[in-house]
Amino acid sequence: MSASFADKVQEAVAQRKTPVLMGLDPRVDCIPDDCFSRGKGDEEAIAEGFLNFGTRLLEALKDHIAAVKPQIAFYEALGIPGLQTYAELLKRAKALDVLTIADIKRGDIGSTAEAYAQAHLGGGEGSAGPFEADAVTLNAWLGGDSLEPFFQRCRDHAKGVYLLLHTSNPGSVDLQEADLASGQKVYEHLADLIDGWQGEGEGFSSIGAVVGATWPRQLVELRERLPCTPLLVPGYGSQGGKGEDVAPLYAHGPAPHLINASRSLTFAWMKRGGTLESAALEAVKEMKVDILGGEFA
Amino acid sequence: MSASFADKVQEAVAQRKTPVLMGLDPRVDCIPDDCFSRGKGDEEAIAEGFLNFGTRLLEALKDHIAAVKPQIAFYEALGIPGLQTYAELLKRAKALDVLTIADIKRGDIGSTAEAYAQAHLGGGEGSAGPFEADAVTLNAWLGGDSLEPFFQRCRDHAKGVYLLLHTSNPGSVDLQEADLASGQKVYEHLADLIDGWQGEGEGFSSIGAVVGATWPRQLVELRERLPCTPLLVPGYGSQGGKGEDVAPLYAHGPAPHLINASRSLTFAWMKRGGTLESAALEAVKEMKVDILGGEFA
Repeated sequence: MSASFADKVQEAVAQRKTPVLMGLDPRVDCIPDDCFSRGKGDEEAIAEGFLNFGTRLLEALKDHIAAVKPQIAFYEALGIPGLQTYAELLKRAKALDVLTIADIKRGDIGSTAEAYAQAHLGGGEGSAGPFEADAVTLNAWLGGDSLEPFFQRCRDHAKGVYLLLHTSNPGSVDLQEADLASGQKVYEHLADLIDGWQGEGEGFSSIGAVVGATWPRQLVELRERLPCTPLLVPGYGSQGGKGEDVAPLYAHGPAPHLINASRSLTFAWMKRGGTLESAALEAVKEMKVDILGGEFA
Repeated sequence: MSASFADKVQEAVAQRKTPVLMGLDPRVDCIPDDCFSRGKGDEEAIAEGFLNFGTRLLEALKDHIAAVKPQIAFYEALGIPGLQTYAELLKRAKALDVLTIADIKRGDIGSTAEAYAQAHLGGGEGSAGPFEADAVTLNAWLGGDSLEPFFQRCRDHAKGVYLLLHTSNPGSVDLQEADLASGQKVYEHLADLIDGWQGEGEGFSSIGAVVGATWPRQLVELRERLPCTPLLVPGYGSQGGKGEDVAPLYAHGPAPHLINASRSLTFAWMKRGGTLESAALEAVKEMKVDILGGEFA
């Protein structure tokens, strides 16, 4: 039996000796001019710049990151050329042996959910998908039946999902932190649902959860409540999450949890100077030390 | 001042004398062979078939529907050729003077939400978006701040949004129907949030809500709780929602609420025989009578 998605993340974290997940969220004003070989005059030229930007970062940082997470919205905003770049970046990451997490936050029902799963995790029988990644982020607001086509691909094709459990933004309190009659918050109820959806099994599930580093208390509580759940933790760095907030996830050494950083790595050249690559390398090494205090225990 | 999105829906419902929203959710096995002029051998050929299918239905039914709602997942599943078809269908609908609601159910934070808004409703300053529609469906799980870029386009550019308030599927009970300490259900709390996000104003807001016809009691309650909210009602027909369940929305004549039907219209040729167009026309006329008992009061 082939390794599960959770196994692959565990292995990547242990082998690359880092929990860093690099976000690729390109913005035209934050990319060095030398990425834009055809200028920035139209969507095609900008999309080519996005491709160069992502490729250069992947090649430079591949041994210093556990996985990569392109945010599809920034490519979608450019239309067709942007989505061509998005698909190509997923292929190049795969060729470089870097795990890919598609930050798509989709969520829909029935045959629509099946279509999204086909697009982003490949067909239910194992055929390739046009935007195929190793894992996706999903929105669980529509409930368990809306997630089943993705769960099937976790079970049958070693894919992974991360459900939005407690997001990093201030507005996450609107629904996620509402108080239930049971005494739980809504996000805690979702945690229990996730526990049920994972079913029985040993070790880490391939059904993971997104919990923002901006909510350190909830992060600790959720790790205890869901001990078999791989966490994807956004909000480190630019959004205010600190190394000490996420360090407890690695108290016992490498674990299949990922700490996302996008702007603080990929736009580091704007603050630090140097090249795109050298600034990002510096930043990714500092981030590792900030979280682990050196190496894994 | 130009008409708001809610005004445009009201006008379309009144002028076309129907509340029907046609969903365009193409599936290769449910489309007549004569749409596939180049066969079904690859994604390009299938995407061309999807374009012919959608165009023929738009041209045949444009005077019998209030708006059209393509479900992007079915195009995304085909990759780039599918999304080219999706963008082209939005343009053709606009050229035929049919309002477009992009069923994208996106939801994300900060600059990511801005990128999705740019993609699907156009730029914040009014520039065109690559997949620009008149309105979009959105997932509010991430809270108010995640929706603001879309609300801005409602205020400034006569766009519309529909927030997923109570979806039509069985799994909607998992989170949406959870009991709050306040005595409300979670979806009722979201209804109050929507009321706040709409702000002050006269008449219908351009911040609408999705409520499934499969939940008739909640549909009546939510219409009373949110009297200024345009509703988008899926779940009629194939999912079990009946004409009598949605008829109360039109008790006082034309109103800017839309009843979605996809399979029961666009795949009607499979059950009824005849052409794609003739079967869909029959079905859309029957649907109007089923809901209104004839014409609007």
